[in-house]
Order: sequence, then structure tokens, then C-alpha cells
Amino acid sequence: MSIASAIQELSQVLGDRLSLSKADLDAHGQNEAHFPVTPPDAVAYPQDTAEVSQIMRICSAHGCPVVGYGAGTSLEAHALAVQGGVVVDFARMNRVIEVNAQDMDARVQPGITREALNTDLRATGLFFPVDPGANASIGGMASTRASGTTAVRYGTMRDNVLGLEVVLADGRIIRTGTRARKSSAGFDLTGLFVGAEGTLGLITELTLRLHGQPEAISAAVCAFDDIGAAVETVIATIQMGIPMARIEFLDGASVAAVNAMSKLGLPETPHLMVEFHGSTAGVAEQAERFGEIADEMGGKGFKWSSKPEERTALWEARHKAYWAVLSSRPGAMGLVTDLCVPISRLAEAVTAAHEDIARASIPGPILGHVGDGNFHSLLLVDPDSPEELAEAKAIAARMVDRALEMGGTITGEHGVGMGKLPYMRAEHGAAWDVMGEIKRALDPGNLMNPGKMVPGN
Amino acid sequence: MSIASAIQELSQVLGDRLSLSKADLDAHGQNEAHFPVTPPDAVAYPQDTAEVSQIMRICSAHGCPVVGYGAGTSLEAHALAVQGGVVVDFARMNRVIEVNAQDMDARVQPGITREALNTDLRATGLFFPVDPGANASIGGMASTRASGTTAVRYGTMRDNVLGLEVVLADGRIIRTGTRARKSSAGFDLTGLFVGAEGTLGLITELTLRLHGQPEAISAAVCAFDDIGAAVETVIATIQMGIPMARIEFLDGASVAAVNAMSKLGLPETPHLMVEFHGSTAGVAEQAERFGEIADEMGGKGFKWSSKPEERTALWEARHKAYWAVLSSRPGAMGLVTDLCVPISRLAEAVTAAHEDIARASIPGPILGHVGDGNFHSLLLVDPDSPEELAEAKAIAARMVDRALEMGGTITGEHGVGMGKLPYMRAEHGAAWDVMGEIKRALDPGNLMNPGKMVPGN
Repeated sequence: MSIASAIQELSQVLGDRLSLSKADLDAHGQNEAHFPVTPPDAVAYPQDTAEVSQIMRICSAHGCPVVGYGAGTSLEAHALAVQGGVVVDFARMNRVIEVNAQDMDARVQPGITREALNTDLRATGLFFPVDPGANASIGGMASTRASGTTAVRYGTMRDNVLGLEVVLADGRIIRTGTRARKSSAGFDLTGLFVGAEGTLGLITELTLRLHGQPEAISAAVCAFDDIGAAVETVIATIQMGIPMARIEFLDGASVAAVNAMSKLGLPETPHLMVEFHGSTAGVAEQAERFGEIADEMGGKGFKWSSKPEERTALWEARHKAYWAVLSSRPGAMGLVTDLCVPISRLAEAVTAAHEDIARASIPGPILGHVGDGNFHSLLLVDPDSPEELAEAKAIAARMVDRALEMGGTITGEHGVGMGKLPYMRAEHGAAWDVMGEIKRALDPGNLMNPGKMVPGN
Repeated sequence: MSIASAIQELSQVLGDRLSLSKADLDAHGQNEAHFPVTPPDAVAYPQDTAEVSQIMRICSAHGCPVVGYGAGTSLEAHALAVQGGVVVDFARMNRVIEVNAQDMDARVQPGITREALNTDLRATGLFFPVDPGANASIGGMASTRASGTTAVRYGTMRDNVLGLEVVLADGRIIRTGTRARKSSAGFDLTGLFVGAEGTLGLITELTLRLHGQPEAISAAVCAFDDIGAAVETVIATIQMGIPMARIEFLDGASVAAVNAMSKLGLPETPHLMVEFHGSTAGVAEQAERFGEIADEMGGKGFKWSSKPEERTALWEARHKAYWAVLSSRPGAMGLVTDLCVPISRLAEAVTAAHEDIARASIPGPILGHVGDGNFHSLLLVDPDSPEELAEAKAIAARMVDRALEMGGTITGEHGVGMGKLPYMRAEHGAAWDVMGEIKRALDPGNLMNPGKMVPGN
């Protein structure tokens, strides 16, 4: 009973769909965060649910850890096999199984990426709205409870997954949820597996809620003198009930990075960028009402448009912001924070983060999905400087403490992975033990993504 | 170690907040469904969370079952102490603890009713939108994952509870969730306790998402020749992205009952009643676009209004429909079905239910929250006729089978309780066992609402 004996049995079953090549192991040991490369012992490429179940039965019998893998875009090293074992890469399970246009739902396999899904859906008039920026896999997005720019309107993965097929630690295959839009038939297992980061089971199929492509879209951009005025504009817009599809904040440093890349020539002060989805008349009204609110709060240079080419120009900046900020310090690695606070505390949280970073030796532009109270700083560190990494971690830790004091969360959308594990007790208290009790009930051998998520694991 | 010894110790702690009076026991043994009166052994009225924790510690030590109780409006006998023990009535824990107007959230105790909460919120410009019809307690609504007429716009309790305080079986007090609007920090325990019907813990505090009172409301009513045309109108309205706040279906028999009570003089054919929330211009546009769609589908007598007195007249019928239908057969008891199917199957499901009822000896008007694919028939039986009850149960069972065949759920919003327990395996298959594993992990002594929810319990 060992990892080696599991691999031997797996290779008989999977043939060349079990990879032991150094290149493959190294690739699956990488991460977008700052954790050391940690290659697994093998990478499996199952082609259907039955095969995933077989993998779990074998690994369970041999006591071999199993870690799910999507597109590798996690920012918290979720998919690192820190206790060795087999990484299950869903690259070959990437189909749209069924689209039900009338019901506005679809069944998909976990390996399909967000962009591939939306390309597939284009002709149906429907789309899947959750947009974390990266072209992540849908299974990974569900496991991380991802969200992004559109959550303020369409919700997170929690809100857009209707049901799942899951393979449990012992190989059992279960289905959670139905195609009904709501249900009160028992424990919300769908909600439990969404965000569980593969520690309770492997997601092998998802039923997703789709949305109608909006008849019209308008976009607006507006500059502010300070963070407080920008955030007050967000609060007032929400309270007026104006339905925003996206509302993004960029601080002056982010705008500077974006200007350098996209030549937009925006003033290098805090900005809000907003998008509205609805009827032609509706989105015009919404943009104008937003403009009035921004104006009252001292916003400057407000402009809006519903013309596709102008909207694209306005939003290009935001879509490239992550890479623009990264390239603003050549060779730097980004340590990305991910706080979410009650919106009444957002200006205070962003300002305090800003002041921390201003005192530090490293840059850290701030941007975020402020309609949810969620913001990121991209702390740019020299990858060869342990001192800079330590400084960045200290700044990030202060931000986390402050978010918790404000009634917020240690991670709005990036998940726990390796990076947020040390803060779980601070956020959850005794409830973290309950997570451990659930984990032990469903995975008594601690084989599913071990070393993550729960205490003493 | 017994129920009797638990009660003895509880009475020392709680004094007159532990009731053994026959009237009290009988009242807490009643149910709105058709189950026999089942008085508990005692009723506790805790006044704070610490006291709930103390109750659980004592009951845990003595092996005494504990069942939570809100307003007693459950339609599936959730709060019946079927294995005896103590009912914990949250009537004295009914305060609003805190309203954060800027963040549009509130902390409340579980015993507050929906109407009392909204009365309290009136001056803030905010409201809590989930509306199951009955004046249920918020804790009960969360435990049942209730929804109602407004779920199509504002979601169910799943979507409107941000966090909880829960007392576990062993008396531990945990907090789930934060005041942030979203989080990806671990297992969604809030989602797990919402809808758990008190089988995993007792909810002692809730953080709720509030919404802005709409600037304007418009309402519309429209008659149709048949069920199919009404449902096609709903589907087209959803696909056009017209944001309805409520969309209710009433069949001809429901309209007849409502006419008899409210003297509305509507034609006794299928009807849709719709409400829109938004800006003045927005709700006018939405009502008119809905009218165009209804017209295309053969709708008749369409009228809409944004004047409060006219809206009230339009909606009065719907709000009284449950009682109107009940009183359409004097002395009858209602067995209320609660199916939810993918909307593409809704016309078929309603039509089939209609045909079943037409063949039966008992009446059963049908109405529902059709924007979610959720509908109810109120099967009206003579409470003294076991034959009629058996016939109603057989009709309800056929409806459940059909909903599952269509990819739907056995209960859209009423919960499992006693009535839906026999169908849990059919809906969930092996996932039902997983619910049992979670239950045993959190409540190894099976003390929390035993006899409900999970297999072999």
C-alpha cells in the first residue's frame, strides 16, 4: 500500500493516459503563486466519469493522494500535490454535454474552459457570465468558488452551478441538485462541493445556469480625486438599485500601468469603470443615472457609450490590467491579495492598504470588483529576493487582519489553497473544526487534496 | 440518561421558560399538514444563544431529542417531535440586533417573523424580499430554505442569508459566513445549515442580505385560454431578460375560488399575474414589453398599473389565493404539493397534474411561482375521510414521480419534513447517503430533529 503501488495499478488501467514524464510532472508542479515547484508522482488524464471513479478506487485502496487539476490558473496553488500522489488533469473531459436553451442551462464536463464554453454557446443567444479574468476551467472555477468582474450582477460560481456529478474518495459517483431552478429537498450538497477545492471529491460534471446575452450593453468610465469619492459613488449606485453588470475600481498606480500598456491617456487618479446590461433604453438610463451620481460625488471626465468599439476601448484597460501591472515592474512576480469587506468599510480598507504599500519598498497597485467590496493589490516582488517576498507577505497579512476586523473575509474569490490556509482559524474560529469533521466524514483516509483546507490535515 | 432526566435538569436552568403545560405541548404537536398531533415532552423558550447552548449540552448529556420551532407555519410538519423530547421555541429570540443600511444587511434573531422584520425596516428604505406567503419566522424560513413569490427576482433563503450563528448538537456555538458579500474561504457552511431543517444544529442568529425598496412598482394581469400559452409567455419573458419581481400562475379553478372570495370577476381561465420593480420608466417599459409578449401568445384582457390602489386590487387575489382555495370546500383540509421542474417541462407537468385531478373525486386548484418552474396544487380533502386522504397522497406521489422524470425536484420550497422523506432516495440516489454521513459527523447521537431528513434515521 503506497503511492508507487497505486501508480503501477493505475498505469495498467489507464495506459498512456497516465503520464510519468518529467516534463508533465514539472508542469503540474508549477503554480501562479510563490510556492516552490512541487511535481506530483504521476498525472492521470481520465476520459470519462467511470475512469475517474476507477482512479479513486485504486488510489483509495493504496492510500495514494489525489489532486484535481483544471487549467492551472489558481492564484493560491490549490492543485499542488504537497503530499505527493496523482494529479487528475481534466483536459480530456472538456465537452459541452447538453445545452437546454429554453431552460437556460447546460451540462458540461469540468475541463472545458470558460472561453471555450462561451464560444460554444454563442449561437444560442445565451452565455455563462462568471468571469474571473483568466481562461480557467469550469471545474476549477466551481472548486474555487470563483467569481470576478460580473459577480455584482450575475453572482459567483455558488449562484451559477445548479448541480454536480462528483466522484467521492471511495469511488462512489453521486449527483447533486437537479435541473430545477430551486429546491428545498435536503442538504445543499452542490453548495458544499462548490468551493471545496477538491478536498471532498472530484467534480466530473456540472449543470450550469446560463443567462441571455444582453440586448444592449453600455459602459462608462469616470475619474475621482480620491478613493473615498469613488467608493461613495459605488455605494450610492447600489442603494439606488441601479443594476450594474460590472463595476471596477482602479487606483492611480493601476491606471498608470494600464496607460503604459494600452496608451489610453487616462488621468492617473482613482477610476471607476462600469458596464450595464439590459434593454437599449434601460442601459442608456442606467449609464446616465450613474453619471449623475458620480458627478455629485465629484467624479470627473465621465463618459459613457453603448457603441461596441467605444465600449471595447473603455474596457480594454481593465481586461489587461493584471498583465499591465505585472509588466510595470519587469521580471517581477505578483503576490495577489484578495480581500472582501462590507462595502461601508471598503474605502477605509483600500486606503489603509494603500498607505501600507506606500510605506513599503515594493509597488502594489490596487484594483477590484468594488460592487462586492472585493479588491486586490498586486504586490510586485523580485522573485530572487526573499526580503521582498517577506515584506509582501507581511503587508498581505496586515490586510487580512484588517479585513477580518471589518467583518470581511480572507479571500473573496481566489480560494484558500496554500496561501490562505494560515488564516482559516482567524476567520472561522470553531467553525473551522466543523469543516474538518465534514472532511473526515467524506474522506476518512485524507486522500483528496491532502494538506489543504481543514485543520490538522 | 433519558428524556425525563433531561427535562428535570432543564427545568432547574430555565425555570418558567420550560413549559410542561398540556396546552403548550398540544400546540407544539400540531402541524399544518395531515400528520397526527404529536406533542413533545417539553417546550423550552430560550432567551439567548448561551441558553440554547446550555439546552443542547444538557440534552446531549441525557440523550434527549431537540427540535427547533419558529412560527409553526411549515407545510410538511418539520417541527414535529416524532421521537419525543424538547421543542425549542424561538419566540423570545425575536429581535433585530443590527441594521447596516450602507451595507444593506441586518443581523436578526431566528424568532422574528418576516412581517415584523419588514415593519422594522420600513424607515430604512430597505426590505427583506423573501415572501413565502405565511408570516413565517426568519429562522424557520432559513431552516426550510423557503422562497415564494419573489424568488424569481431576489432568490430564495439560500441567496439571502449571508451568515449564521449556530448551536451544534454538543452545545458548541459557531459562526458561519461574514458580512462580506462573497467569499471563497472554505466549505460553505452557511449554505449547509440553510435547508438542514434543524437536523445539524439550531440557528440562533442570521445575517441577512437586504434590498432597496423599489422606486417604482408596476403590476399586470393577463388571462389565457390554456396553460401552455401562459407558460410560453413566462419562458419568452425570461429569455428576453425582462426582470420580473413576481410572476404567478393561477389555473381556472384557482381563479374561480379567488373570484368567490375577492369578487374580482376575472374570467375563470388560466391567468398570469406579474410585478415589476425598478425605476418609474423601467417598470413601465417592462410591463409594456410583457404585455406585447402575452399578446403574441394569445393573452387576453391584459392590463397593468403602477398606481398603488390598482396594484393592490390586482394582487389581492393572489395573496388570498391559498385561503380562497381552502374555503372553496368548507371544512376541507389542504394537502399542498410543491413541485419544481425545468421550465421547458412546466406546461406538461401542470397539464398532467390537471388531468390527474380532473379524474379524481377531490378538487385540487393549481397555482404557482412559475418563473422558477415551481407550482402547487391544493388537494382539498375531507379530514374525516381516510379514502380521500389516500387518493390525495396517490395523486401527489404521481406528481412527484413525474417531476423527477422531468429533471425536477420533489420540493421547490416547502422542504422535506415528514411529507417528502419517502421520496428522498428517488431524488438523490447515493447522494442521500452522503447527507447521512454529514449528519452523523455533526450529530453522532442523532439528537437534532431525529426521524427526519437522512436515511435510516
